Amino acid sequence: MRRLSEDVSARTSRRSGGRAGRRRERMAAPLVMLPTLERGIPVLDLLGADAEELIHEESMRILEEVGIDFRDDEAAAMWREAGADTHGHRVRIDRTLLMDLVAKAPSEYTMHARNPERTVRVGGRNSIFVPMYGAPYVRDLDGNRRYGTLEDLYAFHKLAYLSPALHSTSALICEPVDLPVPRRHLHILYGLFRWSDKPFMGIVTAKERAEDTIAMAKIVFGEDFVNDNPVMTSVVNANSPLVWDATMLDALKVYAAHNQPCLLTPFALCGASTSASTVGAVAQVNAEALAGIAFTQLIRPGCPMVYGQFMVTVDMKTGAPMGGTPEAAQMTLLMGQLARRYGLPFRTSGSHVGAKLPDIQAGYEANMLMHAAILSGANYIWHAAGWLEAGLTASYAKFVLDAEQCAAWYRYAQGVKTDDLKDAMDAVRQVGPASHFLGTQHTLDRFETAFFRPDLMEFGSWEQWQAEGSPDTETRAVQQARAMLDSYEEPGLDEGVHEALLAFIARREEELPADVS
Amino acid sequence: MRRLSEDVSARTSRRSGGRAGRRRERMAAPLVMLPTLERGIPVLDLLGADAEELIHEESMRILEEVGIDFRDDEAAAMWREAGADTHGHRVRIDRTLLMDLVAKAPSEYTMHARNPERTVRVGGRNSIFVPMYGAPYVRDLDGNRRYGTLEDLYAFHKLAYLSPALHSTSALICEPVDLPVPRRHLHILYGLFRWSDKPFMGIVTAKERAEDTIAMAKIVFGEDFVNDNPVMTSVVNANSPLVWDATMLDALKVYAAHNQPCLLTPFALCGASTSASTVGAVAQVNAEALAGIAFTQLIRPGCPMVYGQFMVTVDMKTGAPMGGTPEAAQMTLLMGQLARRYGLPFRTSGSHVGAKLPDIQAGYEANMLMHAAILSGANYIWHAAGWLEAGLTASYAKFVLDAEQCAAWYRYAQGVKTDDLKDAMDAVRQVGPASHFLGTQHTLDRFETAFFRPDLMEFGSWEQWQAEGSPDTETRAVQQARAMLDSYEEPGLDEGVHEALLAFIARREEELPADVS
Repeated sequence: MRRLSEDVSARTSRRSGGRAGRRRERMAAPLVMLPTLERGIPVLDLLGADAEELIHEESMRILEEVGIDFRDDEAAAMWREAGADTHGHRVRIDRTLLMDLVAKAPSEYTMHARNPERTVRVGGRNSIFVPMYGAPYVRDLDGNRRYGTLEDLYAFHKLAYLSPALHSTSALICEPVDLPVPRRHLHILYGLFRWSDKPFMGIVTAKERAEDTIAMAKIVFGEDFVNDNPVMTSVVNANSPLVWDATMLDALKVYAAHNQPCLLTPFALCGASTSASTVGAVAQVNAEALAGIAFTQLIRPGCPMVYGQFMVTVDMKTGAPMGGTPEAAQMTLLMGQLARRYGLPFRTSGSHVGAKLPDIQAGYEANMLMHAAILSGANYIWHAAGWLEAGLTASYAKFVLDAEQCAAWYRYAQGVKTDDLKDAMDAVRQVGPASHFLGTQHTLDRFETAFFRPDLMEFGSWEQWQAEGSPDTETRAVQQARAMLDSYEEPGLDEGVHEALLAFIARREEELPADVS
Repeated sequence: MRRLSEDVSARTSRRSGGRAGRRRERMAAPLVMLPTLERGIPVLDLLGADAEELIHEESMRILEEVGIDFRDDEAAAMWREAGADTHGHRVRIDRTLLMDLVAKAPSEYTMHARNPERTVRVGGRNSIFVPMYGAPYVRDLDGNRRYGTLEDLYAFHKLAYLSPALHSTSALICEPVDLPVPRRHLHILYGLFRWSDKPFMGIVTAKERAEDTIAMAKIVFGEDFVNDNPVMTSVVNANSPLVWDATMLDALKVYAAHNQPCLLTPFALCGASTSASTVGAVAQVNAEALAGIAFTQLIRPGCPMVYGQFMVTVDMKTGAPMGGTPEAAQMTLLMGQLARRYGLPFRTSGSHVGAKLPDIQAGYEANMLMHAAILSGANYIWHAAGWLEAGLTASYAKFVLDAEQCAAWYRYAQGVKTDDLKDAMDAVRQVGPASHFLGTQHTLDRFETAFFRPDLMEFGSWEQWQAEGSPDTETRAVQQARAMLDSYEEPGLDEGVHEALLAFIARREEELPADVS
């Protein structure tokens, strides 16, 4: 834990050496997580009231006139019963019905972690950072791009656990492609419970995998608790344009029935799955997200759900998705403004880049989008660490770099306080013109806390840096990731719970096919 | 010009091959510059009215009670005559006097270029991007860090000229250390007039160099014109805390007398030359900047001046300046809010990083600060391209990368229009659920313009990129810089003006010492 940020390391630094000291510290729950971020800076609304109303109006007309497909018989029947106009799976939803349902979803909720100290709040002024999800490849500690394994996934969970500004781990940060698909989810879930005590994400690739997620959560949190209290977040993507498919709806029904929030996220490649228009894409994606949220309230009125967006623009010449573009940043802000209109928790992404390497392109892209995410008022900031190559690759180096950047953004988003202004002015009076402040008591008192110090960033002299071997940022980050993994200690899991999880997995592995045929 | 951004390249692409074709295009003034950015997105005010008032109040008290040094007898005498309380060079300025003087400075002005098509507007909702200044080292086209030369400087001026989102060149992007100091400024200025027809910056390192700047500008623009109309911008740094030194005041007096705007910028290493407090540093720097602006109105009431800030935080452990920190971003926003309070054009920096290499650290830092600059409402966004290593190094690669990012920020800051919403909704009706938009007429019509495409960013497939030799972003950027320099053609300078400039330089070289003794 050599190189974590100043204000964090001050609270996590080893107070005594050796295994015993580390254990004492672990028992005392060392800070591996900052509290839920309470945002202290304003949001940035790009639209005036008229323009916002115009987009809302067009979203309503899409759902009323064009309609949206819910490709599941049960879902379509539920819509019909609720009063929507249905033809097969095509559902046209009147704005009154839609808004009445959306209004049932809470604007904030508490996400419980198995360690209550890691419990977070989502919605309102509360924001959390959550690492990436779903990469088939990793850029490993030797800088090679290869398929991800279970060992990689568990290593990422450990890094997420040890990163103070990450408030949750994800589910499959990388895909453990060394495991057979039918049983893969069991080992993903096991890792979530064993290697971290932060909040986590559920599995959505099949109804029974969602049910297994719920079942294992019940072993950890207790049956009754998981029936009513959010303990996980899952992602349910719409297929833009205007389709919620059967697999996603199956998972959504399982989670909503258990009051477990999902990110209702149209996955939009703007220009391909939306029109080639910033506001046009937003009007469509808004319609898709609202229809999804409204449907969840047919399943369980009042269940917490998150209004989500993932919108990147497409290079119209090659069809390739681009990250970090100005329109992607604008869309983030527009969707945040709409989420506030509807009183819904808002999910967007930060640090989701197109770059293939953790190089300057990745830095540009990541921080353009993360800044937009912060200013959009996003409550659930996903893909906040690790993402490369439009999500195809999870990078160890970028994971720890992004995680440190999240700590910087955390500080930024807390805003500015004026309560130290008078003391600072006393220091000015004491120093006066043409001197410096380094030796004043005011400075000495604030030495550790005045300004954020990103430890993975290099600011020393050229000569000193050369003497250290001129390490570039990826090199320093890989060293940090290795050091974190070396120092990792399990957060501890009740032995009975652990055995019950293993027994569950063993039983399900007997029931499930060994592999896809 | 292979790899410039989409919306720019569409307007600059070669319409016919060969030298004749290129010459025709040059004669038709190909677009090498976007118009002044008219910002269409809101500013981000971090402070409520009470907190803003509190900081203003403390700034006033600094100037009234502590005072500020104007280390020049004439300047102190001017303050005394104006009614300030002076003791030697220490000047205490009553807030009424200060604010009366500040109110004389205009909130906007026109900056004339020698090519009227490059003339820009500074202040209000108008913003310009200006490349970096003052690096002793370059990171060259072979990736080596070495001292800068006149050849480097001229190459950077050519790149600035060819970068559409850069609205000005700088003066000494890198220091031409191969020239003797006493005569260096003449060759810097010559290059500004010859290799670019965009606005430029003046020399401030001695009174006679400022006078030479004015004299050469008069050769280019005409004597009378330069007596009254802004044709250049110069930087006049305060020495924080609370000192305006004689060299800077000498240059300031020359420029203000000719109605030529300066960036009145306290150069603050926060924690060392200010107190270790974000708002404390802002209150001090605000006092310093306002005192400088007020002084210029004693020289020439109504002369346009720019309220400037350069504030980076210091690593309190090593004393090293840090870039891209959350407090640096916050200070940018706070100073922008104060500039609006006083109705002054605002200068800040973007892309000024601590990183030694154009790597992911540089990308993170650059875009955190540039986003803050955009949201601060900055009118003069300096150091927008090229800066590495806290300003010690000018990087060719980062220069062209940053310049392309400026084009992205330009697009972002223009904001969102809703005038294409109805057409986009027609496209949604036509496409409906479960299809795609790529073949629609709406998409085809907007193929080139819908979304920004950063050509130096790599978004294609891994396999294609490997086939191209897996170039990292610096490699691609160096290729771009070489291609731009290969394709560069002079903007053209009147032969009589050219000869007069050469004659002036020859005469001054006879008058000035050959080198410092």
